[in-house]
Formats: sequence, C-alpha cells, structure tokens
Amino acid sequence: MDNEEIKEIILGMGAKARAAAHALATLDSKTKNNILRSMAIGLREHEDEILRANLLDLQAGEENGLTSAMLDRLRLDPVRLEAIASGVEEVADLPDPVGEVLEEWTRPNGVHIQQLRVPIGVIGIIYESRPNVTSDAAVLCLKSGNATILRGGSEAIHSNKALAAALQSGGEKAGLPVNAIQLIPFTDRQSVSVMAGMDQWLDVIIPRGGKGLIETVVSLARMPVIKHYDGICHTYVDRAADIEMAVSLADDAKTQKPGVCNALETLLVHATVAEDFLPKMAEVFAEKGVEMRGCKKTIGILVDRVQPAAAEDWDAEYLDLVIAIKVVESMSEAIDHINTHSSRHSDCIVTADQERAESFISRIDSACVFHNVSTRFSDGGEFGFGAEIGISTDKLHARGPMALRELTSYQYRIRGTGQTRTLNATT
Amino acid sequence: MDNEEIKEIILGMGAKARAAAHALATLDSKTKNNILRSMAIGLREHEDEILRANLLDLQAGEENGLTSAMLDRLRLDPVRLEAIASGVEEVADLPDPVGEVLEEWTRPNGVHIQQLRVPIGVIGIIYESRPNVTSDAAVLCLKSGNATILRGGSEAIHSNKALAAALQSGGEKAGLPVNAIQLIPFTDRQSVSVMAGMDQWLDVIIPRGGKGLIETVVSLARMPVIKHYDGICHTYVDRAADIEMAVSLADDAKTQKPGVCNALETLLVHATVAEDFLPKMAEVFAEKGVEMRGCKKTIGILVDRVQPAAAEDWDAEYLDLVIAIKVVESMSEAIDHINTHSSRHSDCIVTADQERAESFISRIDSACVFHNVSTRFSDGGEFGFGAEIGISTDKLHARGPMALRELTSYQYRIRGTGQTRTLNATT
Repeated sequence: MDNEEIKEIILGMGAKARAAAHALATLDSKTKNNILRSMAIGLREHEDEILRANLLDLQAGEENGLTSAMLDRLRLDPVRLEAIASGVEEVADLPDPVGEVLEEWTRPNGVHIQQLRVPIGVIGIIYESRPNVTSDAAVLCLKSGNATILRGGSEAIHSNKALAAALQSGGEKAGLPVNAIQLIPFTDRQSVSVMAGMDQWLDVIIPRGGKGLIETVVSLARMPVIKHYDGICHTYVDRAADIEMAVSLADDAKTQKPGVCNALETLLVHATVAEDFLPKMAEVFAEKGVEMRGCKKTIGILVDRVQPAAAEDWDAEYLDLVIAIKVVESMSEAIDHINTHSSRHSDCIVTADQERAESFISRIDSACVFHNVSTRFSDGGEFGFGAEIGISTDKLHARGPMALRELTSYQYRIRGTGQTRTLNATT
Repeated sequence: MDNEEIKEIILGMGAKARAAAHALATLDSKTKNNILRSMAIGLREHEDEILRANLLDLQAGEENGLTSAMLDRLRLDPVRLEAIASGVEEVADLPDPVGEVLEEWTRPNGVHIQQLRVPIGVIGIIYESRPNVTSDAAVLCLKSGNATILRGGSEAIHSNKALAAALQSGGEKAGLPVNAIQLIPFTDRQSVSVMAGMDQWLDVIIPRGGKGLIETVVSLARMPVIKHYDGICHTYVDRAADIEMAVSLADDAKTQKPGVCNALETLLVHATVAEDFLPKMAEVFAEKGVEMRGCKKTIGILVDRVQPAAAEDWDAEYLDLVIAIKVVESMSEAIDHINTHSSRHSDCIVTADQERAESFISRIDSACVFHNVSTRFSDGGEFGFGAEIGISTDKLHARGPMALRELTSYQYRIRGTGQTRTLNATT
C-alpha cells in the first residue's frame, strides 16, 4: 500500500467515525450500558478467534526476538480475556458523565444559559504493545459517548483486530452505531502522521506509550493531544516531619512498584533532620536493594552507603530501584528544586506542621501535591474514579488522573423567547 | 538579528516568565486587584509616551499604505487610552477564579482529595494589529494568575512596547512580579515558530487574528492551542416557528453586526413554512441591502430577488451583508446540513414546539446551540462573564465564550496521615 492509499483509507475512517459520534452523542445511559454488556459478551463469544489471533502475534513476536517480558505483555489467555470482558462490565456500572448540567443561569433579559456535559466526539488513540488497551480505551471512550479510531502497535495487530471486531459486533447487537469503534488495520508509520493531521475528524488524540511515540504525536498533531509524559516525582522530608512516617512514605513511594509513573525518584531532606532520617531510610533502602545516589551532604552522612549523584540524576525518571537524594537547607530550596526538576506529575511533603504543609502545597506547580500520603496514590483507581485512561501531565482540559469526565466536553444551550441584540443586549 | 539570537532571547523570556508565574500563583486576590488598579494608573501616567509611540506606528502605517480602516484600528488617542485603562479597572472588579474548590472528597482509607482551581502558568498570546489586545489579554491573564508572553503585529510594535512597559511598571508599584508581562520586542516571523516550539516554558498559546495566523500556530505548536476559527453560524426556521420571531431573529443575527463571528451566515427554512416566511424575510433583507443566495426552492419562491447559491456558499463565512438560504424538507435535513457545514460555533432553531427544540439542541454538535435567541448572544459579555478572551471553536479545555475561568487549570491536593499503598490501597 502506498502513502496515498493509506491516507485515503484513514481519512475515510475519520468521516465514518464522525457520523458514528453524532449517533453516539444522543444515546441514553441505559442503551450505552446495554451496549457495553453486549460488548463483554462479544469478547467471550469470540474467545477462540481472539486467542488464535493472539497466537499469530506471539509467534511473530518470538520470530522477531521479543524479550520474554514483552511476549508476556502481549499474551492473552482465557483468564486474561475474561478479565478484559469483566472490565467492560465494570465500566457499564460506572455513572455516565454525559448530560450533567455543570451550570445554569438566567440573564436579566430572560435568556437562559445552560452549560451541559457532552461527549468530545471522535477520539484517536495511538498505543503500543498491550492488546488490552484496545478494549480499555474503546470502552471508556464509548461510555462517555465518543467514537474511537484506534491505532495499535504492530506486535499486537492480529489480537487488536480480533478484539476490536468482537467489541464492535457485540455492541451492534445492542444498538452500537456502526463504525463507533474502528481499528486501523495496518501499522505503517505513515498512519500516525495521517491521524495527527486530520483535525477535521479527530477532536483529540491520546498517545499511550513511550516518550518516542508521544514526541512524534506532539510534533505532528494539529488537534489537541492529551499526553502523559514522565513522572519525576519528589518527596520532601521537612524539618517538622514525623521521621518514622517519612521513612514509611518514601519506602512505599520508591519500592512498592518502582516501574510506574507515580513512583518516587528524588528524595529531598531538610538539613535539620537529615542526620536522624537518612540512616534510618538508608537501612530500609539497603534491605530492599535500592541504589542510592546522593549530594555531598548526603554522602557526608551516609558515607559509603551512597553513590555520588551526577547533575543528570536530578532529572532522571529511573522507574527502577534507584533513588536520588539531596539535603536542602530550607523548604524554599526544596520547592525551587521541585519546580525546576519535577515533571509536574506528583510531589509530596512529609511534615507535622500544617502551616508549612499548606505553604508547600500552594507553591508546587504539579498536577498532584501530597501531604503525608505516598505519591503512589496518584491514580484514577485510588482517587475513586473507577477507571483511568491515563495521568495527564498537561495543564489544559485534563490534569492528573483522567477518567470518564475527562473524556467529555461541554456545550452551551441557550433558550429564550425571541431575544435580539438590537433590543435586548445586556452589555 | 539572526535566528539563533532571536531564539536565545525568546527562550530567555520563557524562563523568566516561568519564574514570574510561580510568584503570581501565590498572590491573593486583593494584591492582584491592587496591581491591576496600579496598572491602570500606569497607563494614564504614561499617556504621552504611549501616544508618541502610537504616532510612530501610524506614520509607518501610512508610509506602508495601510487602509484608513486599518489605520483607525491602530490609532490610540486620549479617549481610547482611557477606555483601555478603565477596562483594566473593570477586570479588577471581577471575581477571582483562582482558589475555587471544584470538588473535594475523602476516600475510605482516610485520604482527602481536593480539586482546586489554579492558574495555568505561562500563556503565549500571538495577535495582529489592534494595540488594545496588549492590555486586554495581559490583564485577563494576570487576573487569573498567569504570566504572559505577548507577540503583537509589526504595525503596532511601538504602541505595544509602550503599553506593555506601562502595564508592567505600573503593576510593579503594587507588587507585580518582574517579567509577569513580557512583550517580544521584535516582530520577525521566526519569533512565532520559536514560541510555538517552547513547550517547556509556554503552557498554552492563544493566537488571536486571521485564519493564516491560526493555521501557522496550529501547525507549529507543541503545546495546547486555544483557537477561534471561523463562525459559520446557522439559523433553522422550523415548521412550527413563529414566523414574525423568525424574521426578527434572522434579521438581528445577520444585520445587527455582520462582520463578527457570531453573525448568521446560512438560513435553513422548513419547506412547510417557506412560502410564508421567505417573502417576509426577503423584504427585510432587501431593505437592509442583504444579498441573498438561495437553493432552487428558494429561487422558486423568491424568484429574481435571490441569486443562485453555489456549492461553496454552504461553507462560506461572509462576515458581510450576504446570506445563503436553503429550504429543507425536515428538521433532520437541517441538522445534517448544520453538522456538516457549521464551524461548530453557534447555531439556532426557531420553533414554538419545545419537543422539536430539545431534539434539535441535543443533536447539534456546536459550542452554542440557541432556541429562539439570536446567535449574536454567543458572547462573553452577553453570557455575563464580564470579559472575554475569545470564543473557542475547540472542544477541549474551553468551548464557546472564554473568560477568566477558561484561563485556569486545576490541581489535586491530597492530604493524609501517612497512608501507603502497601497498607492502605483501596483498589
């Protein structure tokens, strides 16, 4: 297929998605929930096809030398497929964000204005290996009334096709508009740039994957991008910290699941408590195999238990059992360090002093600021959203953990009795 | 100056703006309002410098052959400058959106989550001729706690420099952080692409001007863009319309101020009422000098009072005393026409049938949908916002009339008592 053909096919999918979006926008919650339950049944009924398709991907993956970890991420089996299907049913049980009246008021001239939550329209999702994203993303978008165009990674293309087909056909039995869930059936690189350019059809594009993918989408996209860059998260142990709590929070944030975006990467310690805190912390980290990289003052206290930190350590997202540690002379120094080096994802203060906590919170420019809580709670599930499409490091539209509401827009509905500006302007 | 120097200067301004933004974010409402009042005084105190600078722009404009309309847009005089200064004071009187708690809740594990409105950070504004935008934009951004980097058009460069300097120096007397309002002191084209690329410093970019400018910014920008494309607005006269009201609303929407984005461009008329409505409408339009371009059925009714519409008329934003008119067989046909040809800005139904009105409203995919109200009410002032930075035709972050709230983001503040995922996860 040449580039022109790819472009034509994807633009055609865009036009169809727009038509589907208009149909989806008027579905009531009950119909959407029936569709979702029917989609779950569709996944179960097509188990054989899906697992056969997955086998093709696994075979190709082995031939292409994927690591066993990558193959494991790719693998579907009856248990994992059932987890995907019940995930769809769980989304059916969540409240529908669409139709919520955000505000309404009447103007002096009698014009009544209502601001109401509506679907965004058509959402493009570009993602890498894991086939479960096909279902997770499509289902959250559908619950919020949006059509989706999915573009998955080449390693999972057979699995993705089978999953998308099962979801669409299962959904159609309960009234899902045609083309509500479309998967681009090929994985040429060109397809990413065509999607990024078609702002007449895609209202937003969400890249889910590594930095390289996000970078490509950001530089090409003409429509808004909701992105999830890195999580360089900090915990600041204040001079008024409960030392035991500080050790427990930093331990949890660093070691409970080190490979995720809300894990701790840099620990900042007020000089007043450094000699008390650092040896206790180092003992826990040593026990759990955490490599420590410290500033000079940290080395002065921990001596040979810590490696010297280089400049780049203050901007590192290790996603591993490694931590950078810096002793600071004041809370202001900690705040400046965080506002300079944080990826503005999630940062924490540990202190027993409420006033200092509030001062810290109001001065940190990050999506989530924590006081005496592990940064690992920066998560849609832990927030009680019941679902998560990602954690936005952007400041517009959605910031921090994103779920169904963040997949909606709003519309103004203005009702009157014939008001004209000629006679009824209020300004 | 070569491109590298331009880049270095603008990137330097970006870094300074970020520092200013961090300082601005913690200012309370009273301080910000004092700053705004002091900025208004600054404008008045620097009247001589500002008008002298404006004279330089006017002289250059005359030499460069600007039309008298363009020169008039560029011109400042004591009355216009006073209007700008009192505009600043009016913004001081508006409620501060920053600090508003949007939601708060406590999780079963005791973690308390608060979603709070905060400034966006650093806002880039790229605009064309009118020098009053320098003040309007900077002042609304400041009220909402944001630092601004302004890049105005070359025709107004001297006026813009003088206005920005007066605002910044006036504001500093009341505590405005340095570099809160920065104007790029040159107008090379390269400056637009440098701004569009510096997503490390600019959180959002707002182009205010013609399609060419918006198109350039959209294709280059790495950060979110809030844009205001065209206003191809429709009024649909339903079979159940009050004919007199329909004539009055279409007249107002088309002729009260034809050069603006919320003016009517295409009139859709249900076939049942076309023979009654169209001659009455045509009489009003003829009286006001409106050129009518109609479909075949419209021509069948109005005969030689109407020109034939070409295909491109259905996608035209005339911004002038010209209107396209189409007779439709059903409300569905009207809805399909609007969802295909509208710029999703503002569209209206005129009908006395509530049920049909609600069906129309829920099926139109536009920022503002009107029932029995002129589309000219699609306006921040008419909505009661007290200010307007533009009307967004995007669906993310801000849609429709934008004022102070739309210049804010939010932050999650999470407070607890030492909760860790190891012991306290709820999911």
